[in-house]
Amino acid sequence: MLTPAVENLVAQLTRLPGVGTRTAQRLAFHLLSVPTDESLALGDAIREVKERVRACSECGHLTEDELCTICADSRRDRSVICVVEHPVDVVSLERTHEHRGLYHVLGGALSPLDGVDPGDLRVAGLFERVARGGIVEVVLATNPTMTGEATAAYLADRLRDQVAVTRLASG
Amino acid sequence: MLTPAVENLVAQLTRLPGVGTRTAQRLAFHLLSVPTDESLALGDAIREVKERVRACSECGHLTEDELCTICADSRRDRSVICVVEHPVDVVSLERTHEHRGLYHVLGGALSPLDGVDPGDLRVAGLFERVARGGIVEVVLATNPTMTGEATAAYLADRLRDQVAVTRLASG
Repeated sequence: MLTPAVENLVAQLTRLPGVGTRTAQRLAFHLLSVPTDESLALGDAIREVKERVRACSECGHLTEDELCTICADSRRDRSVICVVEHPVDVVSLERTHEHRGLYHVLGGALSPLDGVDPGDLRVAGLFERVARGGIVEVVLATNPTMTGEATAAYLADRLRDQVAVTRLASG
Repeated sequence: MLTPAVENLVAQLTRLPGVGTRTAQRLAFHLLSVPTDESLALGDAIREVKERVRACSECGHLTEDELCTICADSRRDRSVICVVEHPVDVVSLERTHEHRGLYHVLGGALSPLDGVDPGDLRVAGLFERVARGGIVEVVLATNPTMTGEATAAYLADRLRDQVAVTRLASG
């Protein structure tokens, strides 16, 4: 009943998290019914984030420049680094307005069973930042999951000789 | 905390039905995290439906050819036309496997208060199909809403001298 192009759009939409076939069909029909400009604006917006957005060279958070807005903000406390798994965690923590320091976005959590080793995460960059000096505290805010806890334990082990290490309770 | 391109993607995603800011952020982070090919495939799929998909010249349903697959299917009963508001209604009705005839997709419902008159819908095309002959029954399957009922009443009024007109109970 649907054309190949519509079937393909529905298939692409079902790859999104939390989007089942029914929702994908509803979204596809919506995109078909709105003016072409509006639909294409979504396609262009996707293309633009993939082209423009990259990891901050310092902390790994999202940026369109060399440094993210947080690393580039001179008002942030540069002596405290909060370590998180993903950029979305930075957004969540910033919403609470409780952390005035910088971040370090690992890009995931250690998971040996899934083949995720320290070399697959932004771990070396964290050690470099600490080794460079000026940092007095590292707050480990990885997720309260098995892999997040294992990552926090691994980092605490490596860092506690050089800086104060605290674990952020969350979840 | 988000870059302009990410903010724009979130804004575009919130234009989708049922997508609030939180969901849009989650979808945006997902699109950022998956391989570029996968994200661009969604953008391309959107572009393709807008470029390729159009209204069937006979019934108004979605097609990439002159006629939709239903109008082009010689096994369908060409003496019965089921009138619906939108392509999604065709998909719903086809799922029930109860209608073996053809369809006519109006593209909406009459709503004088919103300025939707017969001339804004695929109404003239329906009258032409009936006038051409060969049709013995028109099943009105517009939505059970005020505008859907008004549209059914309007069409019944115009058609009942020429064909049998029935109203499909739904909802």
